[in-house]
Amino acid sequence: MTIQLFELVGRDDRRFSPYCWRTRMALEHKGLAYETIPTRFTDKDLISFSGQERVPVIRDGHTVVSDSWAIAEYLEEQYSDAPSLFGGATGHGLAKFLNVWTDRTLHLALIKLVIADILDHTDPADHAYFNESRTARLGETPARIQTRSEEDVKAFRAAVAMLRAALDRHDYLSGDAPAYGDYIVFGAFAWCRVISDYPLLKTDDPIYAWRARMLEMFDCMPLRAVGYDV
Amino acid sequence: MTIQLFELVGRDDRRFSPYCWRTRMALEHKGLAYETIPTRFTDKDLISFSGQERVPVIRDGHTVVSDSWAIAEYLEEQYSDAPSLFGGATGHGLAKFLNVWTDRTLHLALIKLVIADILDHTDPADHAYFNESRTARLGETPARIQTRSEEDVKAFRAAVAMLRAALDRHDYLSGDAPAYGDYIVFGAFAWCRVISDYPLLKTDDPIYAWRARMLEMFDCMPLRAVGYDV
Repeated sequence: MTIQLFELVGRDDRRFSPYCWRTRMALEHKGLAYETIPTRFTDKDLISFSGQERVPVIRDGHTVVSDSWAIAEYLEEQYSDAPSLFGGATGHGLAKFLNVWTDRTLHLALIKLVIADILDHTDPADHAYFNESRTARLGETPARIQTRSEEDVKAFRAAVAMLRAALDRHDYLSGDAPAYGDYIVFGAFAWCRVISDYPLLKTDDPIYAWRARMLEMFDCMPLRAVGYDV
Repeated sequence: MTIQLFELVGRDDRRFSPYCWRTRMALEHKGLAYETIPTRFTDKDLISFSGQERVPVIRDGHTVVSDSWAIAEYLEEQYSDAPSLFGGATGHGLAKFLNVWTDRTLHLALIKLVIADILDHTDPADHAYFNESRTARLGETPARIQTRSEEDVKAFRAAVAMLRAALDRHDYLSGDAPAYGDYIVFGAFAWCRVISDYPLLKTDDPIYAWRARMLEMFDCMPLRAVGYDV
């Protein structure tokens, strides 16, 4: 049965949620049939069946799961014969740490560099919602946050340097083959590429090469998504 | 054959290198016979056979390995029938990220809180070396760095909050059982406990409980090491 993925969408069909990217990559990794249901921030009614207000949400037959991490755990357990997302219990535990770090450190660094670009690419119906909710959360408007100050760029580069050091001997964060740990981090870069033409990475950066490998996965599905060629 | 572990030592037999702690826990995890050779910073001659100047160094028969990460990889491969440190290729890759984060974020946060305490617990022969090398590296004397400013405490708490979030559903960073990822992070706390009576963690913190579980491993070997009861 085809799994439904309710996925955040902006204008021009841009799929810009890093969390939805994690889920989409996980579904591909497992080789599962799925369809995406584009969902705007303000389409709360569309996912009210999930008992909460955020995407990603998946519906797999009678099972509904929200939260990207919970979805990954569900897919790993429910489809245990398909390729593993975590590579066992130890990898499962360690992927959680990477999940937390990405949410707190990498995303925060990126938000400061592209938040006004996100606003520019939201669906017109979501524009006011995004602007007001983010201003309330961050204390300033997206336009005022996205100055790309030296300090903000430095914080992002420190996060990338950490990823680069982790990749010094292997092609993927999960070792010699990609798995959920890579999808966690890739979600952040996929998100930015969809809504911003700001060149986050230099082309000679090993993280650029890693991102290129990720973009080409699953018959270039991520590369074919609407986005900028950066 | 007994493996030799050349391990950093301060006054009163205090073993205070976080990297040596990682190796010691890895040797215990693998159930290997080992002896430690206390090594001061200035005992460069003692480890010159390793072709470099830093501990940990292990000598396993004719094999010499330095650098805690390289040692862990060596032990995992050489003693593949013993309990796994990484739990497979994915866990191996993801542990490397935790290794990098611990070196760069957690250690840096801790150094600012305990560096003068380290100095106070070095062997008299190492006192000047430590003071001068750290002042050169960090730009200020240990005494001036260790002010435990609000900002420094906040940076440490943010790092601990990340660990706490990673542990929200499991007893260990490596999942339901401890493995090398836990030893990486535990090395940092073992190090501080050996040289500082500063209470880093509140007793009701889940990370305090995790640390307590780690201290009790291997017949309480870490708990029996010379240190403070914090």
